[in-house]
Amino acid sequence: MRMHGTDPRLDDPPGFVGGTLDRVDQIRTNPVLLAETFADPAARRLVLDGLEPVEVDGALVLEPIEADAWVEDHVLLGVDPTGRPIFAELLVELTGGSGATPRSRGLAGQVSAQELALYGTARSLLHWHVRHRFCAVCGGRTAPVKAGWARKCGACQAEHFPRVDPVSIMLAEYEGKVLLGRQHAWPPGRYSALAGFIEPGETIEEAVARELFEEAGIRVHDVRYVMSQPWPFPSSLMIACIAQATGDALTLDATEIEDAFWCDADGVRAAMAGEPEAPFIAPPRMAVAWHLLDRWLAGVAPREPSA
Amino acid sequence: MRMHGTDPRLDDPPGFVGGTLDRVDQIRTNPVLLAETFADPAARRLVLDGLEPVEVDGALVLEPIEADAWVEDHVLLGVDPTGRPIFAELLVELTGGSGATPRSRGLAGQVSAQELALYGTARSLLHWHVRHRFCAVCGGRTAPVKAGWARKCGACQAEHFPRVDPVSIMLAEYEGKVLLGRQHAWPPGRYSALAGFIEPGETIEEAVARELFEEAGIRVHDVRYVMSQPWPFPSSLMIACIAQATGDALTLDATEIEDAFWCDADGVRAAMAGEPEAPFIAPPRMAVAWHLLDRWLAGVAPREPSA
Ligand SMILES: [Zn+2]
Ligand SMILES: [Zn+2]
Repeated sequence: MRMHGTDPRLDDPPGFVGGTLDRVDQIRTNPVLLAETFADPAARRLVLDGLEPVEVDGALVLEPIEADAWVEDHVLLGVDPTGRPIFAELLVELTGGSGATPRSRGLAGQVSAQELALYGTARSLLHWHVRHRFCAVCGGRTAPVKAGWARKCGACQAEHFPRVDPVSIMLAEYEGKVLLGRQHAWPPGRYSALAGFIEPGETIEEAVARELFEEAGIRVHDVRYVMSQPWPFPSSLMIACIAQATGDALTLDATEIEDAFWCDADGVRAAMAGEPEAPFIAPPRMAVAWHLLDRWLAGVAPREPSA
Repeated sequence: MRMHGTDPRLDDPPGFVGGTLDRVDQIRTNPVLLAETFADPAARRLVLDGLEPVEVDGALVLEPIEADAWVEDHVLLGVDPTGRPIFAELLVELTGGSGATPRSRGLAGQVSAQELALYGTARSLLHWHVRHRFCAVCGGRTAPVKAGWARKCGACQAEHFPRVDPVSIMLAEYEGKVLLGRQHAWPPGRYSALAGFIEPGETIEEAVARELFEEAGIRVHDVRYVMSQPWPFPSSLMIACIAQATGDALTLDATEIEDAFWCDADGVRAAMAGEPEAPFIAPPRMAVAWHLLDRWLAGVAPREPSA
């Protein structure tokens, strides 16, 4: 059962987009149905190495559920298009941090979009569980409920739900050029769209305007939403926009941004084609920033101009 | 310093949109600047009654900072357009729940859009602090840092940031009608757009498709983003979309939805005008659903058709 069916770019989505699992909300909240689903001979456990993916021959590894396994130790990710319930085992502790690793990034080139999306969902959820074993309200111990889609405090009974942190990621446009920046920790030559977490009390559009002013000192208007992407490091929702700048004078926030510059369509096109003389190294294709640049090029500078 | 400047409907925004505070990120993380800002004679404290607003003569109440007040007990909401730093005092405990109350809803008709946005930001942040006095990682006590824009665990040093929970809220469209539903707890006759939290591992568009299938049994394509709104009960980011349904047969999830129906433009127009014979009672103007319906009407059925 395909649950997405709606992204205009499904044939070439950013990484982690295009999952095909039915999330079966009605099973999560029904202990009897959940037990039946866990006991289904078709049920599979997604094999992971901590939070890292395990890939063999271009596919994630899915194993039958062991006879002595407990449903309480698992998250029900959903039911796949062939009817197999897919679970992931909760982790006892984290090894490594919450950021993307070479191994998790590399998965994008190894498995299908659907499997990458499955891994992303599992990674976000498992990370959240390990980091929420205690109740933020009272400090008591929490335990998973609702097939791993919530945790409940044994002391004060508060329910806690997985975090999804919305992030605005944006191109500012001015006179046919877009603003690209780089963070200190990025590989040499890499530039991309600016980004930042959306805060309580602001819209997506207000967050875009604030980030561009804070990080680059520019004012914008006409913020347009372009597309979104779940980013499981650990659990962001990337919301990609294009905004019109009122000028091109830059004042960089040196703590956030190492450098930034305005790039024209030829330069963006060269970078995305991987040309060695390009003015910057483009973000990877799995990043929504790649697709944001691609959409910008399609809008302002068609690759194959008509006549 | 106006930080929004980007919403196409700022002249008539949904509630809590259009804040004019500069969030002064550079002060939050600088203890010296923060102390100076707190000591600024122009600094003001937003007066609240628990999480509830205090309104006098069509305005929120802002008082000078008491001489014996501690900056550690306050959140720096930002600096207003006249240069006044605006703080809110952290709460020791919550009285009442996290939902909207008649008093907090009523504020929308009493104060300016800017003040409503200020209140919304304060409410979300103060609620988050009271509900996160302990560390979800280790159960230790946390304390506010970064002028109240984070909390840090004294035991494991983990940093925790305010939650913003993205919610998709959507109209499905089919043959000139939109799908409206009602929840069991709503006032009699009230119908509105369906909505649900976006989960880890899905895009905005995928969440819209999932919600409409889960709650109403319909499939959609061509999900279009329309607008967003912060909703401070306690801290959602409402992301409003319109989607095209592939059919109009409904299968309602009785636990979530009491009733739903397809409404044509005349019916929506009558409801939004408050006509007594309208087929439903429209959501309040402060809700993003009202504006979503308004945009839908503007797109499919102009109110003043040309010729
Ligand atoms: Zn508790
Ligand atoms: Zn801790």
